[in-house]
Amino acid sequence: MPDWLSREDFALARGRVAGVVHRTPLLPFRTLGRSNGTSPWLKCENLQKTGSFKVRGALNAIATLSRRERARGVITISAGNHAQAVAWAAGRAGARAAVVMPEGAARSKVEAAIGYGAEVQLHGDAAEAFREARRRAGEEGLVFLHPFDAAPVIAGHGSTGLEVGEDIPGEAVIVVPVGGGGQIAGIAGALAATGRLAGRGRVRVFGVEPEGAPGMRRSLDEGRAATLDGVRTIADGLAPPMAGELNYRYVAEFTEDVVLVSDGEILSAMRLLLTRAKLVAEPSGAAAVAALMYGRVPVVAGETVVALVSGGNVDDEMVVRALHEGEPWP
Amino acid sequence: MPDWLSREDFALARGRVAGVVHRTPLLPFRTLGRSNGTSPWLKCENLQKTGSFKVRGALNAIATLSRRERARGVITISAGNHAQAVAWAAGRAGARAAVVMPEGAARSKVEAAIGYGAEVQLHGDAAEAFREARRRAGEEGLVFLHPFDAAPVIAGHGSTGLEVGEDIPGEAVIVVPVGGGGQIAGIAGALAATGRLAGRGRVRVFGVEPEGAPGMRRSLDEGRAATLDGVRTIADGLAPPMAGELNYRYVAEFTEDVVLVSDGEILSAMRLLLTRAKLVAEPSGAAAVAALMYGRVPVVAGETVVALVSGGNVDDEMVVRALHEGEPWP
Repeated sequence: MPDWLSREDFALARGRVAGVVHRTPLLPFRTLGRSNGTSPWLKCENLQKTGSFKVRGALNAIATLSRRERARGVITISAGNHAQAVAWAAGRAGARAAVVMPEGAARSKVEAAIGYGAEVQLHGDAAEAFREARRRAGEEGLVFLHPFDAAPVIAGHGSTGLEVGEDIPGEAVIVVPVGGGGQIAGIAGALAATGRLAGRGRVRVFGVEPEGAPGMRRSLDEGRAATLDGVRTIADGLAPPMAGELNYRYVAEFTEDVVLVSDGEILSAMRLLLTRAKLVAEPSGAAAVAALMYGRVPVVAGETVVALVSGGNVDDEMVVRALHEGEPWP
Repeated sequence: MPDWLSREDFALARGRVAGVVHRTPLLPFRTLGRSNGTSPWLKCENLQKTGSFKVRGALNAIATLSRRERARGVITISAGNHAQAVAWAAGRAGARAAVVMPEGAARSKVEAAIGYGAEVQLHGDAAEAFREARRRAGEEGLVFLHPFDAAPVIAGHGSTGLEVGEDIPGEAVIVVPVGGGGQIAGIAGALAATGRLAGRGRVRVFGVEPEGAPGMRRSLDEGRAATLDGVRTIADGLAPPMAGELNYRYVAEFTEDVVLVSDGEILSAMRLLLTRAKLVAEPSGAAAVAALMYGRVPVVAGETVVALVSGGNVDDEMVVRALHEGEPWP
């Protein structure tokens, strides 16, 4: 069993990120509850600095480096959001930031990472980019920042869980998109550490993955962090080639289940968010809404439900595609 | 000189709308200040119930009807947002709501008004729709609710000004899209009534109109509420055929100026909001951001600037058009 991050660990991380990142709004989204009688809310990390939740973990990870490590600079791997977050957080700390991104990374994300000051290298697919980043870390003496499978990253993401826990003091279901599992580990871990997973005001946490990249689902089924042979989904932020080891343990211990949604359902959720919530979400950011739209999470009338809208960094073409291909709902 | 609405009038109206409509978030939007050093915020009425600020005025207007008037039912004229707002507010009050909409009204707005329970009649252009609504009010015994030129509507919109005034206690510039002028009259009037237009923490209010529908600009130039021969703009919410009489007086007394933006600039502002703020604004809702992007409002480095994003009800095609035709900025 790992040493779970403590209430104190999460409070320290929150202290480091609060006031630097936004306390994002929790917005009511009645439309989503019309067919099942739930009271749904959106936690809008698409409105977060750099356009996604990733900045919380990146900021905490860089804040906990030693001065010597910061002077060496950092290298990481990212399909895009973590790249922007690390570039931004490293820039604030005066550290060099190198990022290896897969060749298929969204154009807007590559440009944004460069805009925030990252030295971007495009390399292979996600698995190859991981290896390249680790290789360069050794060769160039850079500190390798894992995009999700690391305690400081999980602790930083915990701040989202603490915010939602404060905003919703009673019972609730929280649905969180899962890529490597850093965000859900942080949210579930922070809620566990603050006593919110049991008793009165109990919160239940569910994860959502795309059908084409079910790394955490498979990990739960196999009883250990799984590596996928390949991934195929429009949700680029949810498509790492493996579940995080540490994250898997948090998910197995502190969440109810991980459910799957199709790319078509994600497009329909993007469309619903655009047309009814007036919010731009990237495919990864719309996955939790998709799971609720299509009944993948067991909720009952009267329940308070929170969908994590984890990011909004999306190429124009994908927005147009969601408007054209997303199905009207309900 | 009119009897200006008092601090008490605005407080009463706010009491009627608070808790029923959303206290919309005021979100930081740094991108907009990058070229001029200002500190910009977005007041997100696109995230308001029914997708626009209009519900504040409609709710207050219907709340102040007598029981007998409510039993008769109401009729109004609207390009779309006021239609939805009145339908929703009338539905809550158990009153019948008829709405005359111009034949060119956005499809999504017509459907939404019907969805909220309005009896919609499509009729002519905006000026003809106005006449038809007044005719039917007389013929059918319905109460005519003016979409902007009425004290209860202005008082309801004042709640937005009170919220921004509380959220930003210091000096600021507020930029507000102007159609008939109900929203800007309410915001400037409420800030005036609460002593915020002079002294420490002074707020300056500017209006923005599309070049193709400059009713309030012309009213200021002519010294009286003007009627336009014709309007031509994509900002359907800012295109009534006349400025409100009462609203004109508020604008002349309490605002700094009314500036103009082109439809192309509005598309670019929609694009910037979509890609960087992750928000869907309709053309009217993006006008204040456009005025700030293109330097139409005199602001200086260090100033706090609030752009009213007044609505988000927009056809898919217009979103696609903004992504395709909007110019990258800065």
